[in-house]
Amino acid sequence: MAHSSTTGFVAINTIHCREEYLDRFETLFQTRAKAIDRRPGFRSMEVLKPAAEGQPYLVVSHWDDEASFRAWVGSEEFHEGHKRAFEDLRLAKEQGHEAPMTSQMATYHVLTR
Amino acid sequence: MAHSSTTGFVAINTIHCREEYLDRFETLFQTRAKAIDRRPGFRSMEVLKPAAEGQPYLVVSHWDDEASFRAWVGSEEFHEGHKRAFEDLRLAKEQGHEAPMTSQMATYHVLTR
Repeated sequence: MAHSSTTGFVAINTIHCREEYLDRFETLFQTRAKAIDRRPGFRSMEVLKPAAEGQPYLVVSHWDDEASFRAWVGSEEFHEGHKRAFEDLRLAKEQGHEAPMTSQMATYHVLTR
Repeated sequence: MAHSSTTGFVAINTIHCREEYLDRFETLFQTRAKAIDRRPGFRSMEVLKPAAEGQPYLVVSHWDDEASFRAWVGSEEFHEGHKRAFEDLRLAKEQGHEAPMTSQMATYHVLTR
């Protein structure tokens, strides 16, 4: 099917957090570096906290197009924005602990509003 | 954990469509009644088409608060907005066919932007 009427591209990162990491996870986002905000083609982002306990968080980012999103992944801003989280993951691994969070990315075209 | 910093409520309907229903499904949303737009507390909605084939669509609606969302479900506008889809589901059932789509709702508080 054609994407003729689409306007915009959306990436959703579904993040499962270990319970003892939830406070830290929320703090990281509430004090985020806003590095992604400086990327060309970036429109907006939202961090969604599940209303039901035990469900995953969603990080939803809106982009002008898929190319802008792909260019962000691996960019200097991507590493700057994830610096503290990547360090937490590295430390957990180094200490032989389970990862404090796991994530899965899915991408979408905006069909309509 | 407190929701102290949250602003807004988000409902995401994850919809799996049978392949032969995809065109009809997209048309229904592209010509939607905009009944939901008249509900108090409604902010915006987006229909997201998966970039990868075979994945579900997402219907994301933003609300001032959970009460506004709950009041919409079952309202006159809810029935008006879903009229054609509900009729498709009813007909499929009547004719002994599988449902053309299935959906699952999840709700969230906006943690941060």
